[in-house]
Amino acid sequence: MSVTIDDVRQAHARIRPYVHNTPVMTSERLDELAGARLVFKCEHMQKAGAFKTRGAVNAVFGLEQEVARAGVATHSSGNHGAALARAAMMRGIPAWIIVPGNAKRVKKEAIRAYGGEIVECESTLAAREEILKRVLGETGAHFVPPYDDDRIIAGQGTAALELLEDAPDLDAVITPVGGGGLLAGSAIVGAAMDVDVFGAEPEMADDAARSFRSGQRVTHHVPQTIADGLQTTLGERNFAIIREMAADILLVSEQEIVNAMRLIWTRLKQVVEPSAAVTLAVVMRYRARFAGRRLGLILTGGNLDVEQLPL
Amino acid sequence: MSVTIDDVRQAHARIRPYVHNTPVMTSERLDELAGARLVFKCEHMQKAGAFKTRGAVNAVFGLEQEVARAGVATHSSGNHGAALARAAMMRGIPAWIIVPGNAKRVKKEAIRAYGGEIVECESTLAAREEILKRVLGETGAHFVPPYDDDRIIAGQGTAALELLEDAPDLDAVITPVGGGGLLAGSAIVGAAMDVDVFGAEPEMADDAARSFRSGQRVTHHVPQTIADGLQTTLGERNFAIIREMAADILLVSEQEIVNAMRLIWTRLKQVVEPSAAVTLAVVMRYRARFAGRRLGLILTGGNLDVEQLPL
Repeated sequence: MSVTIDDVRQAHARIRPYVHNTPVMTSERLDELAGARLVFKCEHMQKAGAFKTRGAVNAVFGLEQEVARAGVATHSSGNHGAALARAAMMRGIPAWIIVPGNAKRVKKEAIRAYGGEIVECESTLAAREEILKRVLGETGAHFVPPYDDDRIIAGQGTAALELLEDAPDLDAVITPVGGGGLLAGSAIVGAAMDVDVFGAEPEMADDAARSFRSGQRVTHHVPQTIADGLQTTLGERNFAIIREMAADILLVSEQEIVNAMRLIWTRLKQVVEPSAAVTLAVVMRYRARFAGRRLGLILTGGNLDVEQLPL
Repeated sequence: MSVTIDDVRQAHARIRPYVHNTPVMTSERLDELAGARLVFKCEHMQKAGAFKTRGAVNAVFGLEQEVARAGVATHSSGNHGAALARAAMMRGIPAWIIVPGNAKRVKKEAIRAYGGEIVECESTLAAREEILKRVLGETGAHFVPPYDDDRIIAGQGTAALELLEDAPDLDAVITPVGGGGLLAGSAIVGAAMDVDVFGAEPEMADDAARSFRSGQRVTHHVPQTIADGLQTTLGERNFAIIREMAADILLVSEQEIVNAMRLIWTRLKQVVEPSAAVTLAVVMRYRARFAGRRLGLILTGGNLDVEQLPL
């Protein structure tokens, strides 16, 4: 495998000074409702508001000084952009973030707040690739992809590592899957510690589930889900790891995601993104499968426009 | 004084098995915005979703068995009702909660979930008093008032006690003030530990501030604020304590409350009621007064209709 448990442990040692070891949270009422014992890993309280901080810090602080000097660049409509800008700021290097013109205001503000340079582009893949090439050419910046990258995968895996340190008796870990950085990193940790790792995905963005079942990575699809952090295509490296190491990828409807988000808001009193609620939605839908088990769920992020709540 | 620090300590020992010692939370971004060092006491994560659990448990578990047997009763449109129902359930005695017909659905559901018997009444003081008298007469239940009660005041003070255990270097504690149970209890703790205790109150429900300034308890007023937990009149016992022991009561506008609530949601990622945001609103408005100080803020509750967010 391209990424091993040792890479995840090394990433953990590297990022530790720059990220939160986020708390875990439980709720007796949610356990009753779910018919299982749930432990939530609070990555919505992570620096920059999402687990993406882990991979970005690992990638940026893993660079040789002569490479790092020119800065880093990425494309992202979501949390990876802000996370990379923050990691670059902490290392004292510039960051260029290519963002589609229609990206959410709150995400762009976060990038700017961390000193990132926003480069707007049209929201097609071709436009993005072209602008990225131009930025890399003009600046000499190093490209840090949002998920299809060994350093990112190892970094994201550290969340599951901490979760299993705090709750070593878990039967399974469930994470959302978009590009597959978090799921792949978690699956590596799960394989090393003999814990099943499941992916949770919206039906309206089911490329990872279809790829997992067919053994062929689905690359053409048009995702449309309120879990906007998961509207990405499963990465190649990510797929290879997930296919070998994940237990399954389970699908949920938009309504199930909204219901789960509401439970997290009203029972845990935590502000999370819709993407973060997909894991609880899976637990509620596949009750028989998870009945009585001890489950770790990663609450991936808490960045949303409070004016546009899908509740 | 009718209630002493020893009463608060005794309450703490009594309620400990039945309530959460809630966590405290900090945020570097909020500290920057506020120009002060803030420590939030997370009572929105308290059992039954609010600090009211403390006073209710102290009152119910402090009763002699022959008094307790017949059950307890109260009137409440808010969190005290659910808190008392839960405390009664834990002691295995019945609870009657008199609730105005227009009370929020979520509050009534919470009371029922804890096995409380809801008695609806018109939302006038006269109607409430009459129904209370009838319920007490018919059932023999013991009346546990929402705030104007020594046992309630001592119980609510335990939140500040825990806050100062976790953050012993605080310069001041700020709590919302409605009926004054939490503020009075906190002021007793602050006086014993040499920490200033401030009340935070909506301009649109400013009876406590006016009472504090004039030395005369204001009893006739028509509060109208989105901080619906604070639409109560300062109690008599509460006033006596607050007048002697609180440092000041500071007022904020409705817009300042909404802004503070938004900050708590987006920066701390915590779901809190508008009433809970009044303390941060005070810090943001009276910046000069609190600049550079170490402040403890009690996030009082997290019970709200997610369909009706005032954002």
